[in-house]
Amino acid sequence: MKKNIFYAQSGGVTPVINATAAGLIDYVSRNKASFGKLFVGKNGIAGALNEELIDISKEKSSELKKLVHTPGGAFGSCRIKLKDPVKNEKEFRRILEVFKAHNIGYFFYNGGGDSQDTTLKISNYCKANNYDVTCIGLPKTIDNDLPVTDNCPGFGSVAKYIATSTLEASLDVASMANSSTKVFILEVMGRHAGWLAASAGVIKDNKSMPPHLILLPEVIFDEKKFLKETKTIVKNYGYCVIVASEGIKNKKNQFIASSASKDSFGHAHLGGVAPKLANIISNKLSYKVHWAVADYLQRAARHLGSSVDVKQAYAIGFKALHYAKKGVNGVMLTIKKQKAKTYKWKIKYTKLQNVANFEKELPKSFIAKDGFGITSTCKRYIKELISGEDFPPYKDGIPVYAKLKLCIVKKKLKKFKVNL
Amino acid sequence: MKKNIFYAQSGGVTPVINATAAGLIDYVSRNKASFGKLFVGKNGIAGALNEELIDISKEKSSELKKLVHTPGGAFGSCRIKLKDPVKNEKEFRRILEVFKAHNIGYFFYNGGGDSQDTTLKISNYCKANNYDVTCIGLPKTIDNDLPVTDNCPGFGSVAKYIATSTLEASLDVASMANSSTKVFILEVMGRHAGWLAASAGVIKDNKSMPPHLILLPEVIFDEKKFLKETKTIVKNYGYCVIVASEGIKNKKNQFIASSASKDSFGHAHLGGVAPKLANIISNKLSYKVHWAVADYLQRAARHLGSSVDVKQAYAIGFKALHYAKKGVNGVMLTIKKQKAKTYKWKIKYTKLQNVANFEKELPKSFIAKDGFGITSTCKRYIKELISGEDFPPYKDGIPVYAKLKLCIVKKKLKKFKVNL
Repeated sequence: MKKNIFYAQSGGVTPVINATAAGLIDYVSRNKASFGKLFVGKNGIAGALNEELIDISKEKSSELKKLVHTPGGAFGSCRIKLKDPVKNEKEFRRILEVFKAHNIGYFFYNGGGDSQDTTLKISNYCKANNYDVTCIGLPKTIDNDLPVTDNCPGFGSVAKYIATSTLEASLDVASMANSSTKVFILEVMGRHAGWLAASAGVIKDNKSMPPHLILLPEVIFDEKKFLKETKTIVKNYGYCVIVASEGIKNKKNQFIASSASKDSFGHAHLGGVAPKLANIISNKLSYKVHWAVADYLQRAARHLGSSVDVKQAYAIGFKALHYAKKGVNGVMLTIKKQKAKTYKWKIKYTKLQNVANFEKELPKSFIAKDGFGITSTCKRYIKELISGEDFPPYKDGIPVYAKLKLCIVKKKLKKFKVNL
Repeated sequence: MKKNIFYAQSGGVTPVINATAAGLIDYVSRNKASFGKLFVGKNGIAGALNEELIDISKEKSSELKKLVHTPGGAFGSCRIKLKDPVKNEKEFRRILEVFKAHNIGYFFYNGGGDSQDTTLKISNYCKANNYDVTCIGLPKTIDNDLPVTDNCPGFGSVAKYIATSTLEASLDVASMANSSTKVFILEVMGRHAGWLAASAGVIKDNKSMPPHLILLPEVIFDEKKFLKETKTIVKNYGYCVIVASEGIKNKKNQFIASSASKDSFGHAHLGGVAPKLANIISNKLSYKVHWAVADYLQRAARHLGSSVDVKQAYAIGFKALHYAKKGVNGVMLTIKKQKAKTYKWKIKYTKLQNVANFEKELPKSFIAKDGFGITSTCKRYIKELISGEDFPPYKDGIPVYAKLKLCIVKKKLKKFKVNL
């Protein structure tokens, strides 16, 4: 009997996570002889816990085709981190029961470092309980902070959005600086790793060009130095464009902008670095300052999709089943750059142990000496990933995105109280 | 002797103000027999005051061709409002001197309501001093708040950006709402008129769809009612997307988010409605909230240009000289919708007196009864203006925008101290 597939989306979504789902769906439809049904967890692993399995066969194929260009997590995502199975077996037992009840032989979990910890735990638990299931992690994070893989699906498109937005806003502030706004601050995501803030640096060819200051979480924020630089830049070039990561910290290792609340992964809920910096500049230097916080706008901006990123996200989904069919198990897929004159890449894999819970920061060789910019090596790296445009189709002036029915498969088990 | 042209950009810039410059430049190059040189004021009217006239003939034609798709004000803009010429003649005398010194016979001022007040004052002053100059205002404002004209160049592209961004961020929050963020707030520009906030409403077909709440400056912000609505929406649909105008006010007619600083037009410097609302919701309803402030990102987002908007902005520049040649004077050009089955428009004009210093709010017939949304009439109006895509060219993953040399014509007069 052919085994069914369980796929789910986890953690913060990206402009291209649905492209990975699209690759997976395409592979299954072309290899019906090898696989059973494809089920998708409603809201990530919560779909397994609640036995809410979305039946892909009930969706219109015209809508499924739109997944490749639809942002967000079309099947729902979650911020649920499973605890240690030795101390908290309940959830793992439940997942195993649901897998058994629905004849699941393949588990693909599409997420970042925290989510791959879940993939690993489920893989180990099933093995320990003699249940045969292929567990493969599919990388996804706009933060680009997964180890082993050369880059992560989602990053390229958001980097393209940040670079483009910084370029555009810079033209705006440059035209107004003579009699109005002199400083513009863009706050971007990136809790511990500065990949996204760094991406604004690709538009800069020399010192006079924006972004004049990039504030990375890898570099301690020194207010005095920052104000001195801002003042010099305004003096020299008439205006100053700053791109700040939400995760910048002071000498005491405190976030510049953090609130008391934490998410369920235990991370502090950030946001508001830009207005904090704006206040500092406006009080100390008396410049007129404008600021923007991109927040979900950056993470969902599929209208500016990078074609390299979309292709890689799709390939991750497609190759997941290709490798599963070959018997590969307990791994996360990776993107590896090939030696070639133009940018070429391949989908490979690494053991889940190598990636779960790791966070890859910007390497030192990517950060400019003064700490306020990126090196040419970093620029080259990011340029490859934002290359090419993959625009969605438009109707009546707005992009056309997939609308799914999300029909839940008939439940076979008793209700389970998720208490995480 | 052929008279020269003086064109300048004023006030907050837009994604398409340079398209108007492009239209003007094209008309001049095709009608060399009728016009002298085309000079552009560096930083708006400051260019006249400082005798900083940019010589267009020194620019590469390949760069000038890029103006039609370049955001920001390529020649610099300004926030300078000329005072009453009866009491403060100095600046007007200076402008007249500069016009005379450079044989200016045509003055085109590209701006919003405040800027058209400048056009009118200069037109009147020159007339009173028997200097023959054709003065024509060219409309431009993302706020869409100029009277007489059916809409304003700049609005359509920003509306398209806001509608698209709201759609995309909504897909993001919808996928996370089950275990994470339940409310997303997007703050958009619009000090006194809610056209931009309203534009998010075009993506909504029924009550369950985002944006669930649009907060307009035309509607008094009632915190109690707002919280009740937010709670009901989260209960019914699982999440709530809010688009808020920066200019919303409470019952006491105070801006919800205003700082003490004012710009040189005397307007309060706003910003920060989104975090204020986020705080209210998070304190009173305990939902996890995310918020974004689009700020200059929206105003500069030429990468999402509306093709109707770009065409209209270009036509405004092109027709400016067409009408000037015909002897039309003392007017602002307008866009008038034509009676037709599909959206058609023409460039007409109205006396400057009719537009200077006016602000056109959203008409009542455009605002939903509950005050939290827009009517189908409003939706139809905005859909016409965001229609069609006009993407800029890309290189290495980012848009290619014009880079001008901005060579200043040799000065003929003594220095003038601008003190505004």
